[in-house]
Amino acid sequence: MTFDALTRDQLQALHDDQQAKYDALKAAGLTLDLTRGKPSPEQLDLSSDLLTLPGPDFKDSKGIDTRNYGGIEGLTELRAIFAEILHLPVEQVVAGDNASLAMMHDSLVFALLRGTPDSPRPWVEEDEVTFICPVPGYDRHFALTEQYGIRMAPVEMRPDGPDMTAVRELAADPSVKGMWLVPTYSNPTGAVVSEAVAAELAAMETAAPDFRIFWDNAYAVHHLTEQRTKTPDIAGLSAASGHPNRPILFASTSKITFAGSGVCFLGSSEENVAWYLRLLGKRTIGPDKLNHLRHARHLRDLDGVLDLMDRHRAILAPKFAAVLEILEDRLGGHGVATWSEPKGGYFVSLDVVDGTASRVVELCKEAGIALTPAGSSFPHGQDPRDRNIRIAPSFPSIDDLRAAMDGLATCVLLAAAEKQLAS
Amino acid sequence: MTFDALTRDQLQALHDDQQAKYDALKAAGLTLDLTRGKPSPEQLDLSSDLLTLPGPDFKDSKGIDTRNYGGIEGLTELRAIFAEILHLPVEQVVAGDNASLAMMHDSLVFALLRGTPDSPRPWVEEDEVTFICPVPGYDRHFALTEQYGIRMAPVEMRPDGPDMTAVRELAADPSVKGMWLVPTYSNPTGAVVSEAVAAELAAMETAAPDFRIFWDNAYAVHHLTEQRTKTPDIAGLSAASGHPNRPILFASTSKITFAGSGVCFLGSSEENVAWYLRLLGKRTIGPDKLNHLRHARHLRDLDGVLDLMDRHRAILAPKFAAVLEILEDRLGGHGVATWSEPKGGYFVSLDVVDGTASRVVELCKEAGIALTPAGSSFPHGQDPRDRNIRIAPSFPSIDDLRAAMDGLATCVLLAAAEKQLAS
Repeated sequence: MTFDALTRDQLQALHDDQQAKYDALKAAGLTLDLTRGKPSPEQLDLSSDLLTLPGPDFKDSKGIDTRNYGGIEGLTELRAIFAEILHLPVEQVVAGDNASLAMMHDSLVFALLRGTPDSPRPWVEEDEVTFICPVPGYDRHFALTEQYGIRMAPVEMRPDGPDMTAVRELAADPSVKGMWLVPTYSNPTGAVVSEAVAAELAAMETAAPDFRIFWDNAYAVHHLTEQRTKTPDIAGLSAASGHPNRPILFASTSKITFAGSGVCFLGSSEENVAWYLRLLGKRTIGPDKLNHLRHARHLRDLDGVLDLMDRHRAILAPKFAAVLEILEDRLGGHGVATWSEPKGGYFVSLDVVDGTASRVVELCKEAGIALTPAGSSFPHGQDPRDRNIRIAPSFPSIDDLRAAMDGLATCVLLAAAEKQLAS
Repeated sequence: MTFDALTRDQLQALHDDQQAKYDALKAAGLTLDLTRGKPSPEQLDLSSDLLTLPGPDFKDSKGIDTRNYGGIEGLTELRAIFAEILHLPVEQVVAGDNASLAMMHDSLVFALLRGTPDSPRPWVEEDEVTFICPVPGYDRHFALTEQYGIRMAPVEMRPDGPDMTAVRELAADPSVKGMWLVPTYSNPTGAVVSEAVAAELAAMETAAPDFRIFWDNAYAVHHLTEQRTKTPDIAGLSAASGHPNRPILFASTSKITFAGSGVCFLGSSEENVAWYLRLLGKRTIGPDKLNHLRHARHLRDLDGVLDLMDRHRAILAPKFAAVLEILEDRLGGHGVATWSEPKGGYFVSLDVVDGTASRVVELCKEAGIALTPAGSSFPHGQDPRDRNIRIAPSFPSIDDLRAAMDGLATCVLLAAAEKQLAS
């Protein structure tokens, strides 16, 4: 029965029941963590080869000594694999070090300090720079934009992509220079940008001639079902619409191989890639090519990546199933929460009763269950409805995960009952 | 006999002799390269352990799984080694990825876009920002400053450091926000900043409250003789003078282990390090800790580093000796060139007859000997006297190096004779 349909006595009884559960939970002295989308040790073990690679042969397929300086664009054989994933020619894909966030940062910094190839002036010389931010979204995107004083304009992230009416309206403002977007298995809702939405994004009018889509395809191959969702070819669509420089694509092996020691990728038009490499060339002589070689030998080719991702799925899918099972079992039918059922990616997005997300996170914390702060999926950490909670099921063991989810469900019910009783 | 003392006929005979040598050189069809300070394959072989490290044990001394995310400051045991080298507590040293240039870039970008802890405003909001550039100096420093529109004010680099009269005068201008400095075995002259000069740099008045010394100790342990020159403790001197935030120290293993796959370090005051990490934390979740672990196991401790550097010296010292021997043998006594005799580092700095460096580089190029463009050790690539040539002896085999140096000497003499005959 939904909370709305309960009498006050029934509600009080439910509250007291959850309070008793919660007291028991606190007494259990748990230390559980659902905060970050970190691969588990079992997932990392899938890439143990990397611990002893490359071995004595340190030359790439062209005979280049990967130990020495040079090759700012990265190792060709590794870029070739991700060129397939990003639907781009290998010449338009750059391999970097271990964090695609760093490539996003640097692209933003280069635009701010030097302007893009299409900019009338460096972005720091504009009165205001605004980025469109689909919400809920990735907290680190927003933190980066915030750091450099870029105004953030939230738009709703729907199951097939951002609310395009809102995006088009914002893009008519010349201060709007770009947008964040995780196109596939978006963080945290698992939304997948459809072909139609991608085509609109590629074709739409923008007042800024240097409008950029930061297309963060972090979960391009991170499927949780047998269906391998295909990301729209945003580069091809944009080029066909006469906006070849609009999208900058990012990807990484952080959740394919080792989270802290992977390789990241940037792909874009020829002109954007030349721009990026020219400016990057003053920052570094080249990326860690030896790590590229390790990865090329470990992953082999696209099939190698997909096989590896199947093995990740075998570990991850039961964890996501457990999360959904407990949410349904504990919260289903009460009308106090809705949640995403992602087909890939690293998160479940939970919406609780408006105005109670902070309370849920606080209750969990006191019971030893760490959650990402409420609001963290919104610009400046401000969820206007205080309802969204991001659940990261990947890192804990399945037993810990079940315990944490059960505790979380208790807190959701308790907070909802508290609110209803106080109203 | 010096050129000045020759009769015109003697000079013409010398010219013709060198022209004949040069024609023979061109006919030999060499392909030699003295451009960049790259370690040779034999040097890289000294760190072959890294090709299979870390092996199955991927945990650091604290039990942290180095494969996963986190630890933005880098692995403690590796930072400890470089903390000793930089005379800093380990808490004030950050380990990054493979390029200290990247740490310099990011420090500069953070200062430009956000300001330092002592800045009244971000540097981009200043009318002008100027860096003091000791010359000849490192071309990549100057290229980085140039990229972001920072004015460069050259001062003479002397054997014991920059011309401090000129530095003090410049620092009295509030637009002068910083300076580049390679304190030990400076690129390209091999100059070593003395304790006295370091103390002056630490104590001097600067009009800008946020004046920064980018102290690039790239060659801290890169000795070419048995004497292990000690770099002045610029952080300690600056703190004692009431300017703890003035210096930012950089170092790397690029020329200790693998040039393209090493680890870089930044060290500074507590306040500067907190500032750097706070801003860096929006760029990345952490550096490649697995590569830190490889390095910590390979290098072990400071003695391990010094032992390894002795083995580098055994390879490098004969190459530098060959360069100096050929310069003395071919150019000594002619009064057409002077050169540095470095006790460490990666370069020999050659000054030829004023106005002939470009011609020498051009002659060499036509004979298949690649040199760094004339002027590259100066801001904007402009050597006002067109006399400086940077020689990088490390990469070629000793036979190739001898052939290249002999060819270079021929070109120096030929260009000098051409100029004298035309005058």
